[in-house]
Amino acid sequence: MADGLTVPFALAAGLSGAVDSTSIIVIAGIAEIAAGSIAMGLGGYLAGKTEQDHYNSEKRREYYEVDHLRHREIEETKEFFASIGLDEELQAKATEQIAQDKDKWVQFMMKYELGLEEPDPKRARKSAFNIGASYIVGGLVPLSPYFFVEHPIDGLKYSVAVTLICLFIFGWFKSKVTGVNPLWGALKVMLIGAMAAAAAFGVAKLFEGA
Amino acid sequence: MADGLTVPFALAAGLSGAVDSTSIIVIAGIAEIAAGSIAMGLGGYLAGKTEQDHYNSEKRREYYEVDHLRHREIEETKEFFASIGLDEELQAKATEQIAQDKDKWVQFMMKYELGLEEPDPKRARKSAFNIGASYIVGGLVPLSPYFFVEHPIDGLKYSVAVTLICLFIFGWFKSKVTGVNPLWGALKVMLIGAMAAAAAFGVAKLFEGA
Repeated sequence: MADGLTVPFALAAGLSGAVDSTSIIVIAGIAEIAAGSIAMGLGGYLAGKTEQDHYNSEKRREYYEVDHLRHREIEETKEFFASIGLDEELQAKATEQIAQDKDKWVQFMMKYELGLEEPDPKRARKSAFNIGASYIVGGLVPLSPYFFVEHPIDGLKYSVAVTLICLFIFGWFKSKVTGVNPLWGALKVMLIGAMAAAAAFGVAKLFEGA
Repeated sequence: MADGLTVPFALAAGLSGAVDSTSIIVIAGIAEIAAGSIAMGLGGYLAGKTEQDHYNSEKRREYYEVDHLRHREIEETKEFFASIGLDEELQAKATEQIAQDKDKWVQFMMKYELGLEEPDPKRARKSAFNIGASYIVGGLVPLSPYFFVEHPIDGLKYSVAVTLICLFIFGWFKSKVTGVNPLWGALKVMLIGAMAAAAAFGVAKLFEGA
């Protein structure tokens, strides 16, 4: 969502410095939102699907190895217990107990040997929808002022105000959730947005002059 | 990098349907690349820093708990061994051995109780640079044809050709690295780009007419 706010915001800011028609900014902004929401949403969906496929194929392989290369799997399980600091006697005993239940053993190898968590099958679809939708909502915030004013620079003023406030609020709540200092987190998110917009504005001005 | 190719590509495609000057497309594209590379690069850098801070603060807490809430930590360690299927005797013995070395114990808790890997301190900077740089390189690919032609639609034709080829090549190698079927992976990446560009083109046309 921060990207969904920041990139269209910066694009509109950049164009505000270079063109004198708000309609071009609106069209470019809408095109960017459509592109970004599809690229990020669909990209997220397919990445989730790939993760799921990867998990399933690794799981099949572990089952195969447990059945056909039992000796090697036992060595690998022992190695895990050695790596966390158990002595050889406990390595052997713990491995023996785990190897008694094939399903539990495969689950253990997936999680602790390969470091793979079982992906939630519904997550790919849900996260795609969330990413796409937040990109659209986020993108409309910085763009909306341009619908109502005539001169791009006026739109830019409102857009800067509205977007920085939204980035601050968004950064605040995101930091709360991830357990970071909210004020510092909010300022960081806001600063990234401001820098991206300033860079876009500067670069567009430069190219307009060229 | 795929996003770095896709979003500027789609933006340029969208504008090609709506404006009749390549210079506006070039300016918008450059602004988008500047905005995206800063937002993604800086965003990636700060996300990496946050991860590092989070890791360090959790580590300090584990050390505190090992020193002052030893009984609780022992329970938690036993619970881990219970969860992977060891019986009570082995749970107790394994926990006893792990608890002998405080550093190893904390390392164990970080990794297997909390599921946190120690972040590489240099990674945040490196990955920020990589993300930013690939966004710039990726963005210049779909934009470059517009530098050399007069009419946006001509630029669009070359841009579609060049970008889809690049997306295919990129998708191919990315799939090779992640162990997915390369042809299918390449087609997927290409398809996302094509759909995003088509949507941006359609939406921009719609708004131009309005």
